[in-house]
Amino acid sequence: MKQVTITRRARFNAAHKLWNEGWSEEKNFEVFGKCANHNWHGHNYEVFVTVRGTIDESTGYFMNFTELKALIQEYVEEPLDHKNLNLDVPWLFGKQTSVENLVIGIWEQLEPHLAKSGCVLERVRLYETENNYADYYGES
Amino acid sequence: MKQVTITRRARFNAAHKLWNEGWSEEKNFEVFGKCANHNWHGHNYEVFVTVRGTIDESTGYFMNFTELKALIQEYVEEPLDHKNLNLDVPWLFGKQTSVENLVIGIWEQLEPHLAKSGCVLERVRLYETENNYADYYGES
Amino acid sequence: MKQVTITRRARFNAAHKLWNEGWSEEKNFEVFGKCANHNWHGHNYEVFVTVRGTIDESTGYFMNFTELKALIQEYVEEPLDHKNLNLDVPWLFGKQTSVENLVIGIWEQLEPHLAKSGCVLERVRLYETENNYADYYGES
Amino acid sequence: MKQVTITRRARFNAAHKLWNEGWSEEKNFEVFGKCANHNWHGHNYEVFVTVRGTIDESTGYFMNFTELKALIQEYVEEPLDHKNLNLDVPWLFGKQTSVENLVIGIWEQLEPHLAKSGCVLERVRLYETENNYADYYGES
Amino acid sequence: MKQVTITRRARFNAAHKLWNEGWSEEKNFEVFGKCANHNWHGHNYEVFVTVRGTIDESTGYFMNFTELKALIQEYVEEPLDHKNLNLDVPWLFGKQTSVENLVIGIWEQLEPHLAKSGCVLERVRLYETENNYADYYGES
Amino acid sequence: MKQVTITRRARFNAAHKLWNEGWSEEKNFEVFGKCANHNWHGHNYEVFVTVRGTIDESTGYFMNFTELKALIQEYVEEPLDHKNLNLDVPWLFGKQTSVENLVIGIWEQLEPHLAKSGCVLERVRLYETENNYADYYGES
Repeated sequence: MKQVTITRRARFNAAHKLWNEGWSEEKNFEVFGKCANHNWHGHNYEVFVTVRGTIDESTGYFMNFTELKALIQEYVEEPLDHKNLNLDVPWLFGKQTSVENLVIGIWEQLEPHLAKSGCVLERVRLYETENNYADYYGES
Repeated sequence: MKQVTITRRARFNAAHKLWNEGWSEEKNFEVFGKCANHNWHGHNYEVFVTVRGTIDESTGYFMNFTELKALIQEYVEEPLDHKNLNLDVPWLFGKQTSVENLVIGIWEQLEPHLAKSGCVLERVRLYETENNYADYYGES
Repeated sequence: MKQVTITRRARFNAAHKLWNEGWSEEKNFEVFGKCANHNWHGHNYEVFVTVRGTIDESTGYFMNFTELKALIQEYVEEPLDHKNLNLDVPWLFGKQTSVENLVIGIWEQLEPHLAKSGCVLERVRLYETENNYADYYGES
Repeated sequence: MKQVTITRRARFNAAHKLWNEGWSEEKNFEVFGKCANHNWHGHNYEVFVTVRGTIDESTGYFMNFTELKALIQEYVEEPLDHKNLNLDVPWLFGKQTSVENLVIGIWEQLEPHLAKSGCVLERVRLYETENNYADYYGES
Repeated sequence: MKQVTITRRARFNAAHKLWNEGWSEEKNFEVFGKCANHNWHGHNYEVFVTVRGTIDESTGYFMNFTELKALIQEYVEEPLDHKNLNLDVPWLFGKQTSVENLVIGIWEQLEPHLAKSGCVLERVRLYETENNYADYYGES
Repeated sequence: MKQVTITRRARFNAAHKLWNEGWSEEKNFEVFGKCANHNWHGHNYEVFVTVRGTIDESTGYFMNFTELKALIQEYVEEPLDHKNLNLDVPWLFGKQTSVENLVIGIWEQLEPHLAKSGCVLERVRLYETENNYADYYGES
């Protein structure tokens, strides 16, 4: 059977910091360095969402890119763009807002809605800077 | 055994539209939106071809990038560059010229020639825009 | 006085061909090569619009990027995206749809609306491919 | 005389918001939209610093890229990277932290040190996102 | 269990040539083309190192990007940047300095140190030009 | 009169080093750092050539991109690609192979041929790395 994956890129600009409330200030700066700056810093995040499915011959695809774009807009961009990841995003409360936790959080927000649309979420990739990114493939 | 993959990028600029002859004009625009524009639109496509093999110690590779480039030129760029994907490409006749169908078509054009060269086609990736791409890994 | 320029990027995907009605088919292919393909080809165009102004202290800018984005959307993206530049764009009728003529056309569409907003259009840059672009700075 | 310019790119990740203390909350959101989010947002800024000079034949340049990099590091990256532009940067206090004001601020921080090194600052370009940037060429 | 991968990009600029000492000059040029130029040529290499691990809740990651960056700096950038890959890198002596052999060499240099840090090296990707790259996933 | 500029990108991969024969080894390393490595290093250079002219209505351009590409190929890529800039390029003998001298050299090689084609060379831009580039606008 001929399965393909499609990938859609989206972007959001957010503030955050890395900080463990259970640690002293000294330890926070020792572990997180400048990422612990009290007054926050921020990033232009780039997210790549990859879904898998079997092509419908009448359309040439299994999911319209426009539909994928709309789901990412609703469940990723709306809650994260121009927000503070530590303060404004309920599903990140109590977690470090590392790119690693964030990529898992995005997966968990998107996955049920993609499943409802009948396709399989294969990977979420999240760039924090041009040099650093994280990938999540779901629980194994 | 030490296997590597190599990936070569190529580009082609083509016109196309999404249109299902069996549907009314109304339904075509409802499903395909502006991609159904009668007079076509177009893209700068970027294709990434990934092949796998075992390194020959005398050369340091299993397939010369120049050879891979030439195969992509002959079987992808020649038939697709500065063409209309719906009208000028026999192996796409009767199919939607979606990026999903196109990436499968490119695989099928290239694969026999790569097999003849003794290496394994692992993936074809095709970008339609900077935000949208499709991957095909062959039938599973 | 402290003047800055701001630049906004936008994108549109269009079909076109280069063809001179006054010439034989032979001469058209001799001059325009594969760009003369009867059935069209297409591009992902990228446009960069640069405007100049003097900063208003109360906002920190002279024109909101959101306003610039909206003007580009109305006068560039709406008429050009998912269109055929030769057939669907009245202000290009009778002209070659080269990147050179197109960048001038975009300038002429945008300039009056930017002037009305009180800022100066400084440059329009238009990429046709990653290797080719044209700039227009207005009549001199 | 043979003059060239050289340009060095640098990056910094910072939080900020657009907010005018003299305005109501309502007006702030009306003018600045989501950029006024109370809890900040942030960006990966990219700065391009262009300087002009006459080549010294013994070295092949007028200013070592390493020296230019060090000046940008000291006067741009150190004060701005992983910082809050509204709260952590004395030379931006009392100003909107728009990309337009920021590019002027960077010019003013760098210019005296470049002049001391005997070269002319020609332009500072600052990207806030892949779609938006500002240029400053000094007072005219 | 929730595993993620993180990827760090690094760069190095090096000279090299492809040349087989056991072959005639004629055969070398026939096989390697301009890559056999006696006086060397060079590249801006880009390497992407991907490691896998399970997130520690107290930090939000399994390996600090700063630590990964430092390991790449010590074992990849230091020995390769501004070097001649054929003459200056002991662990490449006697091998063709193809991107394929180089990506394996980088894996072998990095892997023991990543294992010591408790994480799994998943892939090394190496770009030689914007059009050519190689991936290595370890011995299988 | 309506003048536009067009810009064509080209690439070449070359080896070089910075070294002043009149200086001690110690001074060379002090001034040029790792760029003085005896056994060379190298780069993927990117050159952007910008020419100005007045559009011919019958074609929509003043110079075919194909013609510009061919001139760059003959006078820039052929002599520089897969070469050693210090040893293989007669017009660089006796000069430091800095990006600054190189951009002037490229201008001087191209300018007479562009003038013969009836257009004006406006700028040559040369990237040595993603962070460093030089521009030359001709003698003033």
